Amino acid sequence: MIEALAQNWGTVPKTWTRRHLLGLEELSADEITLLLDQAERFRTVLMQEDRKIPLLNGKTCVNLFFENSTRTKISFALAARRLGADVVDFAAATSSLAKGETIIDTAKNIEAMQVDAVIVRHPCPGAAKLLAENIKSHVFNAGDGPHEHPTQALLDILTIRQRFGNVAGLTVALVGDIAHSRTARSNIWGLKTLGAKVILCGPSTLVSKNWEEIGVEVSYSLDKILDRVDVFNLLRIQFERQVVRPFPSTREYSHLYGMDSARLAKAKPNVLIIAPGPINRGLEVTPDVADGPQSAILDQVTNGVAVRMAALWMGLGKT
Amino acid sequence: MIEALAQNWGTVPKTWTRRHLLGLEELSADEITLLLDQAERFRTVLMQEDRKIPLLNGKTCVNLFFENSTRTKISFALAARRLGADVVDFAAATSSLAKGETIIDTAKNIEAMQVDAVIVRHPCPGAAKLLAENIKSHVFNAGDGPHEHPTQALLDILTIRQRFGNVAGLTVALVGDIAHSRTARSNIWGLKTLGAKVILCGPSTLVSKNWEEIGVEVSYSLDKILDRVDVFNLLRIQFERQVVRPFPSTREYSHLYGMDSARLAKAKPNVLIIAPGPINRGLEVTPDVADGPQSAILDQVTNGVAVRMAALWMGLGKT
Amino acid sequence: MIEALAQNWGTVPKTWTRRHLLGLEELSADEITLLLDQAERFRTVLMQEDRKIPLLNGKTCVNLFFENSTRTKISFALAARRLGADVVDFAAATSSLAKGETIIDTAKNIEAMQVDAVIVRHPCPGAAKLLAENIKSHVFNAGDGPHEHPTQALLDILTIRQRFGNVAGLTVALVGDIAHSRTARSNIWGLKTLGAKVILCGPSTLVSKNWEEIGVEVSYSLDKILDRVDVFNLLRIQFERQVVRPFPSTREYSHLYGMDSARLAKAKPNVLIIAPGPINRGLEVTPDVADGPQSAILDQVTNGVAVRMAALWMGLGKT
Repeated sequence: MIEALAQNWGTVPKTWTRRHLLGLEELSADEITLLLDQAERFRTVLMQEDRKIPLLNGKTCVNLFFENSTRTKISFALAARRLGADVVDFAAATSSLAKGETIIDTAKNIEAMQVDAVIVRHPCPGAAKLLAENIKSHVFNAGDGPHEHPTQALLDILTIRQRFGNVAGLTVALVGDIAHSRTARSNIWGLKTLGAKVILCGPSTLVSKNWEEIGVEVSYSLDKILDRVDVFNLLRIQFERQVVRPFPSTREYSHLYGMDSARLAKAKPNVLIIAPGPINRGLEVTPDVADGPQSAILDQVTNGVAVRMAALWMGLGKT
Repeated sequence: MIEALAQNWGTVPKTWTRRHLLGLEELSADEITLLLDQAERFRTVLMQEDRKIPLLNGKTCVNLFFENSTRTKISFALAARRLGADVVDFAAATSSLAKGETIIDTAKNIEAMQVDAVIVRHPCPGAAKLLAENIKSHVFNAGDGPHEHPTQALLDILTIRQRFGNVAGLTVALVGDIAHSRTARSNIWGLKTLGAKVILCGPSTLVSKNWEEIGVEVSYSLDKILDRVDVFNLLRIQFERQVVRPFPSTREYSHLYGMDSARLAKAKPNVLIIAPGPINRGLEVTPDVADGPQSAILDQVTNGVAVRMAALWMGLGKT
Repeated sequence: MIEALAQNWGTVPKTWTRRHLLGLEELSADEITLLLDQAERFRTVLMQEDRKIPLLNGKTCVNLFFENSTRTKISFALAARRLGADVVDFAAATSSLAKGETIIDTAKNIEAMQVDAVIVRHPCPGAAKLLAENIKSHVFNAGDGPHEHPTQALLDILTIRQRFGNVAGLTVALVGDIAHSRTARSNIWGLKTLGAKVILCGPSTLVSKNWEEIGVEVSYSLDKILDRVDVFNLLRIQFERQVVRPFPSTREYSHLYGMDSARLAKAKPNVLIIAPGPINRGLEVTPDVADGPQSAILDQVTNGVAVRMAALWMGLGKT
């Protein structure tokens, strides 16, 4: 525990007035920047020998995951522990839901145990907002159906900002399974708010033309946009969410939309490759590109813990 | 951590001489009152900003759950953590039991790891007692089949005492699925010991006439007892435990035994409604009653953590 | 927390230069002895009232278990907690593997969260080594297929050393399911390195004659070796790993290879019975022998936590 560092850490910025973190659509550029700036500070703590900074001692967070998750759940748990908070897991599979309880009743029960924060993942869009409106604990959205996944987008954007120094003016392409991706939605809102140009690229079965109405570009050809993109965010094909197969074969998908060294050679020299894991190697991205110098895929993971430390502290750290 | 509060907390009352908490049947009125009094003190800690009081630093508790549980398991885990103890989960589904180990061998193995407390839930009546007789660790019964669930009854009774100031002389009706309910059994023993009158009410398939032999009243009509009951404890219909369907339809059950505003209007003005969750809204109780001013359902949950802090501290806190 | 004890504990012996604990085959006699000596010290801590010694405060361990486990996982978790480290569970069943991720990608992601140690169990031989070659975190092998399970063998050997004062010169028989047993392999390497004579005993379907090539004795008759063995290590019949049934019936197996009081009467007077649980009572060993004075089965469990504390501290405790 870095007691001294904690004592000199300072207080939560007064300009941060939110209790919850539900999505990036509702955040201003200033608010997103506040989160990114604090995450950058926590990243320096993560890189030290002793990574615990006891800013949230005595606080309790519940991981309320109604969908399977590995990295997001562990990342939030590590973030909370490193701030000195306790974390209790609520396993949906063994939960009261099987006994017929509503999500609000479940959450109110958890709140009544005097819990400070609820980190929620749920298959329904709006689930996090529904909780936030009904309980007094702080709510952190860890993914609500295909709607939003704010901490994932924040870690993507933090990774971009670290590489380029800024976000405004960059062209960021989100490639692949836009239809099923909450990560895509949160990225679109966050990137646009910060002044980036967003291109959505993928097969027409996964990328609706209607997206153009909110001011993003839609492209069905990765090859045509290669030379004018600063950042490729290669979204995972989410086989587990698809009811109808959206493309004839994985071979065709990787042929048309997979990032490989040939495509990388036609991209900008300083292009950045990111991907919200787990990646399907050889499908969205070939191993040489995923592990190559343009890739910041593992930086994203480190940034994920930093972003979640920032989010938890900004919400819970008010005195 | 509230170090100062911990230092002035005092020692475990000398009149508490038990190592384990197996059930309420064996406890005297003085012992139950001791537990309730300490729980009341811990509840005030829970209501503070900083909810951790390090009375059990360095102690380790194992959550040994052979049945699914959400709230009891989390409640015990939170109670232990807030006392500064470590908690390790033993997941029955992935356990050595699948490899043919007996429950006593499993427990002896856990004990040999130098664990201080075992919090056990098991489908067999007497499982907690069996463990207590065979291991040196403190055993806390978190439910043994339909036999006892002492901390649930203690939190019910604490909620009653908070509302009425006392328990003796009150009339408490346990409504519904008495046959499958360990909560009912623990409540019956605790309430009778403290001097309350107990009425068991429900369909004859779920409430045996034989209960009258131990000095409780049995009624098959909720409407007939409405006006003379101080507390209704609405037990959950445990569909998951029923082999034969005990009533023709859920509609008939809620028509005959569900608590709704019409029935509430005929009850005493200061009647208290409690229910061991998770509740089936619209079955045992309508939403307006569950969320109304007579209901203390969420108070029960907070009291649950307080009761478990008291139980753990009384057992483990002897120096 | 025993702060004072921690401050006077001393540093990791300079002769211990390994980052990982992958198996006993690669360790020298001096290295194994170092681990056993430190484990002996930690055992004395475990036997105290306050069992936490904060030597690894601020460190984070991940339990990366791709196979079910109860005791090894809990034992490692308790060891880490008692050293003051945080432990985060990675549940394989709900993991990214189901989404098509490779084990190295999974581990690199966990490492990128700035985790200090990965405790890994995996069905493939060499999985722990593969991780150690690819990530910077310390790797502790908690069992890799039928290959090695070093902490299990260390606790077996520590139990032997406690009883006899030394290992060199003893005759140790590993009885039963050698073919599927990583515990057997780790014991063979460790025992031979420390100068013990090793006999492998069991049906020919489970004990290959080829083992003789590395300098151990193979016997198909338990009765013939009874009177010249100092330690019987009764391996569990791992029904869950067997594709073809290796013997006609469990009755025949226990008749030929089960340890019972009749066989014990023909063994050396000070013979030691150990078994890596969970035991199948009546199959490898009868209850009276398992619970009798020659048995140190529960000592093994306590030693398991001590050995894991030693392993974690030796790996992570370098300043």
